Amino acid sequence: MKYRLLAIGKPKLDYAAAGIQDYAKRLKHYVQLEIDYLKDRNESEALLSRSKGSYRIALDERGTQHSTASLTKQITQLESRGDLKAVSFLVGGADGHSAAFRDQCDQIWSLSSMTMQHELALVVLLEQIYRVFTIKRGEPYHRE
Amino acid sequence: MKYRLLAIGKPKLDYAAAGIQDYAKRLKHYVQLEIDYLKDRNESEALLSRSKGSYRIALDERGTQHSTASLTKQITQLESRGDLKAVSFLVGGADGHSAAFRDQCDQIWSLSSMTMQHELALVVLLEQIYRVFTIKRGEPYHRE
Repeated sequence: MKYRLLAIGKPKLDYAAAGIQDYAKRLKHYVQLEIDYLKDRNESEALLSRSKGSYRIALDERGTQHSTASLTKQITQLESRGDLKAVSFLVGGADGHSAAFRDQCDQIWSLSSMTMQHELALVVLLEQIYRVFTIKRGEPYHRE
Repeated sequence: MKYRLLAIGKPKLDYAAAGIQDYAKRLKHYVQLEIDYLKDRNESEALLSRSKGSYRIALDERGTQHSTASLTKQITQLESRGDLKAVSFLVGGADGHSAAFRDQCDQIWSLSSMTMQHELALVVLLEQIYRVFTIKRGEPYHRE
């Protein structure tokens, strides 16, 4: 299974860019992950077009909040399906996703009930995916 | 009102240390904030002792999840009380807080239903406090 993280706009906050890079690097040992930053024009169309044919998980405040155990179960279930080749995580810009966009996604996850700076949300998402894969492998959580 | 963030152990992750510094710097324009990293021995005692006399808000997965609007309301209410001089945010180490510890806190907040690396949780908390103060001041959210 391939994973794709599609986000709007390259991170401008130095710490967030560093955090994203940190977890992307760690995740390479576990999974094939591609991160694409799309231009902030026609966001929805760009995210849908780039994720065509993949299982779409949108990140949105109005989505379902999961525990880490529940996310691990979700990912495990997706990986056990024979019909999926790729999972895309779709993160919108500062204004989130429209209802029409959310309708075209397979799952909507919410990372928190609080509004979070969207570049920080990318770090939180990647840390969580990293955490899920260390759990799936039965490994201790590696900090380095 | 003074704010204190008490956490266990200095951040080891470079991106988290940078994120904490980033938001601490921005917050200086809004509020008096002191960040103290305590040693990871007798965590609970150290956190309680250092926060003595202040209003204690512990961060813990078993706490209440708030929206940003709700957090803004909480902070506004605390600031309008005449009897409080300081609010302390208490963040435990990787294992969270004990029940006995939580009993001695005034509020328990949960940042997410997911388990989050605790240094990353500090960044998320500070970003949120920063967001609350920009909202209270009626200012647009500043990124720089």
